[in-house]
This record gives sequence, structure tokens and C-alpha cells, in this order.
Amino acid sequence: MTAPDQMSPLRRKLYEVIFGTDTPAGKTFDLVLIAAILLSVAAILVDSIPSVHLRFKDTLKWVEWSFTLVFTLEYLVRIYCSPNPRRYIFSFYGLVDLLSILPSYIGLVYPAARHFIVLRILRVLRIFRILKLIRYMGEANLLFRALNAARRKIFIFLFWVMTIVVVFGALMFIIEGPANGFTSIPRSIYWAVVTITTVGYGDITPHTPLGQAIASLAMLTGYAIIAVPTGIISAELFAEVQHSKSNRVCKHCARVGHDLDARYCKHCGEEM
Amino acid sequence: MTAPDQMSPLRRKLYEVIFGTDTPAGKTFDLVLIAAILLSVAAILVDSIPSVHLRFKDTLKWVEWSFTLVFTLEYLVRIYCSPNPRRYIFSFYGLVDLLSILPSYIGLVYPAARHFIVLRILRVLRIFRILKLIRYMGEANLLFRALNAARRKIFIFLFWVMTIVVVFGALMFIIEGPANGFTSIPRSIYWAVVTITTVGYGDITPHTPLGQAIASLAMLTGYAIIAVPTGIISAELFAEVQHSKSNRVCKHCARVGHDLDARYCKHCGEEM
Amino acid sequence: MTAPDQMSPLRRKLYEVIFGTDTPAGKTFDLVLIAAILLSVAAILVDSIPSVHLRFKDTLKWVEWSFTLVFTLEYLVRIYCSPNPRRYIFSFYGLVDLLSILPSYIGLVYPAARHFIVLRILRVLRIFRILKLIRYMGEANLLFRALNAARRKIFIFLFWVMTIVVVFGALMFIIEGPANGFTSIPRSIYWAVVTITTVGYGDITPHTPLGQAIASLAMLTGYAIIAVPTGIISAELFAEVQHSKSNRVCKHCARVGHDLDARYCKHCGEEM
Amino acid sequence: MTAPDQMSPLRRKLYEVIFGTDTPAGKTFDLVLIAAILLSVAAILVDSIPSVHLRFKDTLKWVEWSFTLVFTLEYLVRIYCSPNPRRYIFSFYGLVDLLSILPSYIGLVYPAARHFIVLRILRVLRIFRILKLIRYMGEANLLFRALNAARRKIFIFLFWVMTIVVVFGALMFIIEGPANGFTSIPRSIYWAVVTITTVGYGDITPHTPLGQAIASLAMLTGYAIIAVPTGIISAELFAEVQHSKSNRVCKHCARVGHDLDARYCKHCGEEM
Repeated sequence: MTAPDQMSPLRRKLYEVIFGTDTPAGKTFDLVLIAAILLSVAAILVDSIPSVHLRFKDTLKWVEWSFTLVFTLEYLVRIYCSPNPRRYIFSFYGLVDLLSILPSYIGLVYPAARHFIVLRILRVLRIFRILKLIRYMGEANLLFRALNAARRKIFIFLFWVMTIVVVFGALMFIIEGPANGFTSIPRSIYWAVVTITTVGYGDITPHTPLGQAIASLAMLTGYAIIAVPTGIISAELFAEVQHSKSNRVCKHCARVGHDLDARYCKHCGEEM
Repeated sequence: MTAPDQMSPLRRKLYEVIFGTDTPAGKTFDLVLIAAILLSVAAILVDSIPSVHLRFKDTLKWVEWSFTLVFTLEYLVRIYCSPNPRRYIFSFYGLVDLLSILPSYIGLVYPAARHFIVLRILRVLRIFRILKLIRYMGEANLLFRALNAARRKIFIFLFWVMTIVVVFGALMFIIEGPANGFTSIPRSIYWAVVTITTVGYGDITPHTPLGQAIASLAMLTGYAIIAVPTGIISAELFAEVQHSKSNRVCKHCARVGHDLDARYCKHCGEEM
Repeated sequence: MTAPDQMSPLRRKLYEVIFGTDTPAGKTFDLVLIAAILLSVAAILVDSIPSVHLRFKDTLKWVEWSFTLVFTLEYLVRIYCSPNPRRYIFSFYGLVDLLSILPSYIGLVYPAARHFIVLRILRVLRIFRILKLIRYMGEANLLFRALNAARRKIFIFLFWVMTIVVVFGALMFIIEGPANGFTSIPRSIYWAVVTITTVGYGDITPHTPLGQAIASLAMLTGYAIIAVPTGIISAELFAEVQHSKSNRVCKHCARVGHDLDARYCKHCGEEM
Repeated sequence: MTAPDQMSPLRRKLYEVIFGTDTPAGKTFDLVLIAAILLSVAAILVDSIPSVHLRFKDTLKWVEWSFTLVFTLEYLVRIYCSPNPRRYIFSFYGLVDLLSILPSYIGLVYPAARHFIVLRILRVLRIFRILKLIRYMGEANLLFRALNAARRKIFIFLFWVMTIVVVFGALMFIIEGPANGFTSIPRSIYWAVVTITTVGYGDITPHTPLGQAIASLAMLTGYAIIAVPTGIISAELFAEVQHSKSNRVCKHCARVGHDLDARYCKHCGEEM
């Protein structure tokens, strides 16, 4: 690992532009990169439409390779100017960067993998890095903190949902049976997920009166329990909002989080 | 721009009736206008039903032109009596007013644009102006303030949803493929939106076991993340309600946190 | 109107049993009545199933007439023993009582009205009266108060939804047109309601790419704005819960609703 | 009943391992049991897929009987080492334990009950016991307390939903009638549940304009009232969180409302 101030001037300059957002050049680079990512994703989207693919096959191939080469170059420069290349390469965003160029090269070597080239679309995840840098994420942090604080409750909730879904799936498999489309328990569980989450495709539906009664119960269950995660996240978000709102700082210990009516610091006991 | 007290008596009178809501004449005008808007929208609705169109074509044409002429006259009077006509014309409601009469005239010149005459239905937006005036909007303001305070969080949330939808769309395009209705990535993304939002038309559904497993994951994701915007808006709305409460300051002891209905300070007992 | 203590002993006794819930006889009467209502509703439900109707036609007719006669007798006794019969007859529950027996007699006179006999099912509403009496409704009152406090916000929200639904309906009528099932604007509005509320039957679905894009927008709108009523009701309910929780009573003015940290009554200013 | 310290060393040791979670052996036993339950459930799931059943019938039968014997042994040991066997047998988890092995033996005696063997899947409920022990449930308790506090409100809400569903079902039966799929009131009620909960399979849909209008009303009702349980649970959860906060009393000034992380009273500044 090299400390930034020990790097050569070129590396440091590149580092500032590519990884930083404080300089005008760094901001411009970020905006150009967002535009390039969105354009390349749009190209992948339209290329997947058969009629467009037939007519603009060659243009789109050319566009795709231009973007791939640009992103490859960017990837190499990122490795070059990173103070700690190994850490960058194995970081989450380093892997996303690699994943967004690799499928094109694999497609070159194994033409049979044509379909998996679509994975280039994971490029869209790269935008998050830029958003993360551009300060916009103060708000996102609050969301993340609330979700993080609620993660145990949400895990328990999902475990409940799983169990409910398995039990309803097995019940319907017994009641409706293969004749009505419930051909196996996994398929019945798929139906239960479709029902409990209130998606309701209608590709598998109960036909017997008893099955319809059980299905009604499943729907009401799903309709009622959606209130649980919502309540959890509302409560956490509100606590989070309140916490950051009472930004009163104690002048003795400099800690925050005091109520509006607090006369004494709750941490050190000095008068505020 | 003309200051209201420099306007001729006729203009001022018209201004009071058309833009104001305080005088009896102004109130009557607003009620008549709401009725006219609702009736003209109803006429457009029934005119679009083929069987009704066939039988009452001429009556409805006559009705529509009556309303168009009335609204045109109103539009011209609004321009005439407005203290600042240019500002009115390019304001949001000025453009809505224009948009609600323009399609009829365009349809006269270019009969081929028959279908776009339906845009007259945007008239319905005009009702908001009247509601805005009639004081009812004290409550709406609280809603708007809460939504405004939450706009960054909602933007980030929608960006997440977009990314999730693109990733699930691409995955299902690879897994299910054109044979099962996932003919292109944009169409797969349409499926992902239908699924994540729990709408679930059922016009495109997964057929392979792996596709159904991924779809189940998408549904559970959609079912869980709806809690996020709900939590955001609940928290903001509640903070908004509390804010209007905790902002009352006692003029004797300068402490805050009083209820909206408090007549005496809860801390020092003096009248507020 | 007769004051209860001026009524004859029989009327007063009947009044206590039928309208009251404090005496053992009153409680027993309520329980028997709930059972009778549920049984008669169950009879109507199964009578509507063609195969059951064919086999048990006569039994069910006999059952139905027994219940109708019992409810008619009860209705007449209620009128007889009510202190103010006119007020009872035109009260909400008086009308529901009448409506729950009338269809049977009308069906006797006009056999053609056979289908409307189903309206007897509105009997189910009578259970609410009993629940209302049996104290269970302390909780329901809290719900009602919260809903009442939120009614303006909910009205404005529904007005928004109406407008959104009309605009999306008109747009889809132009874009998709009759060829894809959007045969008229009212039908397109029906589609918009099905979509915005995330019900998603799939009986009408967009087929053009532009239509699918607009539909995706409508779904995301519906998915996001459901957060608004939820937020409204959460905030009101929470305020309501908090309000009733701080049941501290001022010993001078006997009013409630004081904060936990209040030293002085917010209504009269006396020390608590 | 035998007090734990009066039991033989073997029984006490077994009791510690099987019912306890504090010793290393107890933890290992729990993990092994969770793995066994999940594997046996997975075996039941794949066994229900016709193609898998055909090919791996014998292997799966062997796997199933192994698990059944292991669970039977565990059940007997639990009875043996429980301080109060009778109480264990008739406890909720005791019955679940029995239910998870019984279907296999019944299937041996009455081969016709083949389908009901699927009930073995209720084994999945056994995992809850283990989770309950492993402390993870501190969070779940908060959820349960909130749900418990809200149970009356939720009961009233469900009663409303039932009534709404019966009334809409009866209305649609009259309006749409058997010709459009609404063949009986129970079936119409099934449609109403599918619609109000926003599941929307689309297996039964309104075809007449009036029916579609009523259905739109039902959808908007369902879309709006889902806010009620969500609001209830949000409010309770938040109150629950706040309750644990506001219950801390300062021992010097006896005032409440301190944060959970407060070391000093915010009112008088003394250590708490």
C-alpha cells in the first residue's frame, strides 16, 4: 500500500479525478461516467429487443465494444492509481467494475455464452458508488441505519412468512391437488408466495370451495401481516429522525441526542 | 403589471369574482365552475363509449362546444382582468386552462387528431385551483410539506426500486427466455415492475422452477420494501404534526413543547 | 316521547332486555340475537349455491321465513318499547332492522324481484349494534376518532387518486386504443383503478411498449402513494394513543391530555 | 412431576442437552436438530414433484424413514427426561413434535392416507422452539407485545373487513350474476376477498359497467383500509419502543422520560 502523498504526481492527479469528487475535474468525471453507464445500459436494453437487434446489430455491437473498452481502460487506471490496488480489486465496487466488463470478453472466447452477456447490465450498480460519493447519501444513511436497526425484527418476520408460506403451500397441495394446477409442494409454495404477497398472477388459482376458503384466509393473512414490516420500519425511521433532530450538543462532553427539554447533559451531568 | 387598485372598476370586479373566493359572487362562480368542469369531463367520458357515441354523437358535440366556448370566454376574461396577464398565461394553472380548450380547436383544424381531443380531459386538473383557493388546503399543505421533506429519501428509494427492477428483469430474461414470454429485457423489466409493485396481471408469468423461485424472491422483496416509503412518510407526517406542537414557546419561561390547545404553560403556569 | 320511568312495567322490562346490556337477560338476548343473525346469513349464503338450492330449497325457505318472522316480531317489539319510536324507526339501525326483513315480504308480493331478496344479507350490519353496546367498542372509538381526525387529509388523498386515475385512463385510451381492450375511457379508468390499487386482475393489460411503460409508471405511482394514507392514519392513531395515554387529570378543572412532564395544567394554569 | 435436581444424572444430562441451550452440547444438539428438520422438510418438498418421485422414490422413502425414526427417538427421550412428561406431551410444542412423526406411521397402517402424509411438513414449526430458546427472541417479544396490545383493534378491523366483503359479495352476485362467473354468494365473497386484499387473480372479473364501477369502489376501499392495520401496528410498536424509554425514573427528582442511554437525569443532573 502506498500513502497518497508518496504517490507520483500523475497517480495522485488521476486518483483525485477518478476516486475523488471535490475537484471540478472529479465532478465532471463522475457526471461523464454516469452518462456512459446509463447509455451502455440503454444499449443493452434495446439490443435485447429482437426487431431492434435484427436491424441495428452491427451498430450496437460497435457501441457495446466502445463502452467495454472505455470501462476496461477506466478499470485499469483505477487499479494503477489506487493507493492499495489489491484492496480495491476485491472490494464490492471493484468486483462490480470487473463484472461489468468481463461478460463481453467471455462472450468473445465462448460465443455460446451469448445469453450471459446480459450480465453486463449489472453495470447499473456502478452508479451507486458515484451517488455514494456525491454527498446525496446523507439521507440514504438514515434509511440504512433504520433498516440496520430493524434487521433482527425483519429477519424474524421473514422467517414467519416462510413458515406460513410452506404451511399454506402444503395444505393447498392436499386440498386442491395436481388436477387443479397444484402439481407439487414447491409449486404450491410458489402459489402461496404469489397470494400472501398480494401479487396474484392468477396462473394457479384454487377451484374447490374449500381451497377458495383457505386461499381467502391466506390473502387476509398476507393483507394483515404486511402491516408488521411497515410498522417496524416506521417506528425505527421515526426514532432515527427524532434522534438526529435533537441535535443539541453538550458544551462539556460534546455529545448529542438530548431531548428538547433537557436541562442537564444525560451523558456527563453538566448543565447545558 | 397593474396593481389591483389601479384597475378599472369592471376589471377589479371581474378579478374579485373570478380569482377571489371571499365574496358571495366569487363563491358562486367557483361552484358553477366546478359543476361545469365535472359535467364537461363526464361528457368526454361517455362520448368515448362506442355505443353512446353512435347514438348521441350530435348532442355530445353540441355539449362539448358549449363548454369549450364557455371555458374560452372564461380564459379570455381571466387574461383581461389579471393584474399581470403574462404571468397568468405562463403559470401552471394558466397553461392547464389553455390545454383544456386547445384540443377542441386543434381537432377542428386537423380532424385527423381526433384521438388527441381526449386531452381535454386534463380539465379535471382545473378543479385543484378552486380547491386550493377554498381554504381546504390547510390539510393538503401539511401533506405537501411532509412529502417535500421526504423527497430525497423517496428519490433514493425509487432509484433502488429501478435498479432492483432492472436486475430482476435481466435475470428473468436469461432464465426464462423468449419461449416463456420474456421476449426482451424491456419487457422483462415491465414484468418485474408488475411483480415488485404486487400488481401481478399475470400476462407474463414464470414457467420454469428456477424462474418461479426468482419470481418468489422478487415478490417478497416488493412486499418487504413497500414498508420503506410508508415508514418514510409516516415518520415525516408525524414529525410535521409534532413540529407544529413543539414550536410553541412560552413567553415567560421560554420553554417549548406545548400542545396546540394549551392555554397555560405547562412548565411555569403563566398564560401563553 | 316517553321518559323510561313513565313507561309501563312491561315496556320498561322489554326496553331493558332488548336495548340494554346490563342485565343478565339483556346479555342473553344479545347473544341469541347474534346467533340468529349469523345463522340466517349462513342460510342465505348456502341458498345461493345452485346445487344446494336445488336439494334443500324447501327447508331453506322454511328456515328463512322463521328468521324473518322472528326478526319482524323483534322489530315490532323494538318500536313498541322504544321511548321514542319515531326516532328509532328513522335511526341508522332502525332502517337496517327494517331493511333486513323487507326484502322477504317484497319477494312475496313481486316474485320477479327474486334476486333482490339477497339484500336481506344486509342483516349482517345489525351485529354492529350489538358490538357497539357490548363495550367492545372502546377500541373502535379510538379507531373512529383517528379516522375522523384524518378525514380531510383522506378526502384530499382520494381526490388526488381520482384525478390520477382519470388522467392515466385517458392516456391509455389514446395510446393503447380499442384494439387492445381499452374500448372507452370509463373502461380505461377501470383499468387504471385496477392498476393503481395494485389489484391487477389482468383482464385488460397494455400490449404496446409505450403502453407498458406508462402502465409501469402508474404501478410505481400506486405503489408509492399507498404510503400516504398509511402515513396519515399511523400519525393520527399515534397522536390519539398518546393523547389518551397521558390520562393525567387536573384536580382543578378535571380536564385530561397533559404531558407527563407538565407541572401546571395547560387548560387552567393551576399547579397539578 | 420431578424437580430437576431429583432426577437421575442421565436424565438431568439429557435434559440439559435436549431442552437447554447453555451448554456446548445443548447448542450443538440444537444446530443438528435444525439441520435435520430442514433436510427432512426439503426431502418432503422434492418428493412431491412427480418426476423426482418417480426416479428417487426408494431413496426418499429411506431418507424419510431415517428422519422419522430419529425424531421418534428424540420424542421418546424428551418424554423420558422431561421433569413433567404429561405437561410436555400436551404443550404446544409437544403436540407439534408428535404431529411431525405421526403421519408417517399412519401412512404405514392406512396406505390410502398417502396424501395426508404431507402433514409431516408441519415439522417446520419445530424450528420456532429452537429459535425461542436461542435468545434471538428478545426482538420477537417486542413484536408479540405490540401485536398483543393491538389484538382488539385488529379483531374489530377484521370484523369490518368481513362485513365489507359479505356486502360487496352479495352486491356483485346481484349485479353480475351467474352468467359472469359470480355463480353463488360464497363465490362472490371469494371474489371480494381477492379484490379487497388487492391480490386480484383475475379468475373472476366483473364484465358489466355497473359491476366494474362497484369493483373499482371495492378496490379503492381495500387500498385505503390497509392503512388501518398498518397504522395500528406502527402506533403500538412505536409506543412499545417509547414505553421502554419513558419508564426510567430518576431516583433524585423522580421524573421520567429519560433515554435508554442516559447516565444522568436530564432534569436535575444527578447520576441515575
